[in-house]
Amino acid sequence: MKKLINDPQDVMRESLAGLAAAHADILKVSFDPVYVVRADAPVAGKVGIVSGGGSGHEPLHGGFVGQGMLDAACPGQVFTSPSPDQMEAATSAVDGGAGVLHIVKNYTGDVLNFEMAAELCQARGVQVESVVINDDVAVQDSLYTAGRRGLGVTVMAEKICGAAAARGYDLGRVAGLGRRVNESGRSMGMALTSCTVPAAGKPTFELGEGDIEMGVGIHGEPGRTRMPHRPGKELVAHLAEAIVADLPFRGGDRVIAMVSGMGGTPLIELYLVYGELEQILRGRQIAVARRLVGNYITSLDMAGCAITLVQADDELLSLWDDPVLTPALRWGM
Amino acid sequence: MKKLINDPQDVMRESLAGLAAAHADILKVSFDPVYVVRADAPVAGKVGIVSGGGSGHEPLHGGFVGQGMLDAACPGQVFTSPSPDQMEAATSAVDGGAGVLHIVKNYTGDVLNFEMAAELCQARGVQVESVVINDDVAVQDSLYTAGRRGLGVTVMAEKICGAAAARGYDLGRVAGLGRRVNESGRSMGMALTSCTVPAAGKPTFELGEGDIEMGVGIHGEPGRTRMPHRPGKELVAHLAEAIVADLPFRGGDRVIAMVSGMGGTPLIELYLVYGELEQILRGRQIAVARRLVGNYITSLDMAGCAITLVQADDELLSLWDDPVLTPALRWGM
Repeated sequence: MKKLINDPQDVMRESLAGLAAAHADILKVSFDPVYVVRADAPVAGKVGIVSGGGSGHEPLHGGFVGQGMLDAACPGQVFTSPSPDQMEAATSAVDGGAGVLHIVKNYTGDVLNFEMAAELCQARGVQVESVVINDDVAVQDSLYTAGRRGLGVTVMAEKICGAAAARGYDLGRVAGLGRRVNESGRSMGMALTSCTVPAAGKPTFELGEGDIEMGVGIHGEPGRTRMPHRPGKELVAHLAEAIVADLPFRGGDRVIAMVSGMGGTPLIELYLVYGELEQILRGRQIAVARRLVGNYITSLDMAGCAITLVQADDELLSLWDDPVLTPALRWGM
Repeated sequence: MKKLINDPQDVMRESLAGLAAAHADILKVSFDPVYVVRADAPVAGKVGIVSGGGSGHEPLHGGFVGQGMLDAACPGQVFTSPSPDQMEAATSAVDGGAGVLHIVKNYTGDVLNFEMAAELCQARGVQVESVVINDDVAVQDSLYTAGRRGLGVTVMAEKICGAAAARGYDLGRVAGLGRRVNESGRSMGMALTSCTVPAAGKPTFELGEGDIEMGVGIHGEPGRTRMPHRPGKELVAHLAEAIVADLPFRGGDRVIAMVSGMGGTPLIELYLVYGELEQILRGRQIAVARRLVGNYITSLDMAGCAITLVQADDELLSLWDDPVLTPALRWGM
């Protein structure tokens, strides 16, 4: 295993120290318990937005902390759920009196721990709502998940709920928007290679020289099928068709689209994928109204990509366009 | 070779098609000859800024086209210099009557072709100045270069010259700033793995399981030394010391710092690298005034990173902070 790290046990903390040093104008990091929080938290009268999950998916979630998006993020060790005490501390730190929304990717550990944290916070009088994101169409149940896994729609929900909270919407309305984004969004990913968890020191799974894993999970969980590698055009069509058929997305829809690299795939390939995706969608009279192309929800050094589509109306697009100032997403500021 | 591509010969054009589709509000792509250009070019009365070079270093250069940075970028095939006719067409397309600056990374083919293009443009009455970037301290001459190679300072020069041009500075002043950035900046990179050029289909160089290439070039050119892999802390110290000693940077300096991934290294590692770098610099009383951490000048799917430092005074920092709106760098807009 060759990585730019020191002791594998220290990767999460040392990476967070770098994040904090690089973006002190936007956020700070608490190390006991561990969470990333807006530099100016709590914002009085504003709904707080908290997310979290295992590390290894950067910039998710710490890179989305800042004005107009998350108030706090709770990172676990690599591919390991954060603990309820992290979530409770983060929730308290961002509670400005208007309640706190938890945005939770559907992985069993994350869901259980966020539920426990919500109960602890509610017992202390903090209003908490939760939105569980389960947008991955690849498989029904999975290695770490009952039901569908949470994937790229998480980024969309964090942006849109963050904007709604910044506008002063109340907790019920912000949570409702988060649920609507989840219901309107679908994702699927694929892997050209495995990833390597630092503490394990070897690839999470084996993949033949000529094979890819279609529908892979962001922890290297098995997907729908292992298949021979094919031209990008065919792989993108496979992903797009699975996603479009599932909701289903229909002619006339406007969507927010995301092509996210898995961490080890360079931008030259991701733009090629985006070009293929937009052509396919245009052929189905689905208009891409907004898009992200880059590394947004990753799986360490895995090569591959995931596609996310969210049906968007004027309200969601307007919230999407609101200013945001985080390490990984920034516009209007 | 497993990549998200179709025919290896089409990678550059298909990736540019995706870039154009994703960022139609910012830029457009001409395909005959090939160049990326601001959607609103030429801007009357403004100095035009043009750069370019082989593809495979994305987002450099096409991802830096937009308001406040490049007016146009000329991409060659992967790791291959663009041709003089691309450069001439791009220069003409952005000539708003105030002249055009060419920002050229020091690789022999790029330098020769930009020189030829400048002569062709000057013969037609377009004023052209050139700044050659040669910031890589790793080696003196190299596989494709007489003298030092151009590396991350290119990004800094593009941002600062782009801001100066947007302010309405004249060509001589913009070019002078570009030269000052180059003289004040130094870089060095390292590789954990080779990259694979699509048309070659196999890794550019061999690197043992336990070895790294210190001082590697962004086309996989040999660096200073091949050495055993070490903890990130030691690798960062090695890079930082080579860079700091070269200029030299001194206690009391303020710098703009960049940690750029080589394309295959995830953000969790790059932030760890940045954390180590800032500690080392702090120990030398060098203050990081601004920074970038991410993939800015890459080498396809190579794993590794490069560090860039530029000594910055109030003028350079003020230009750095000016608004920019490109696919890869965006703030204040």
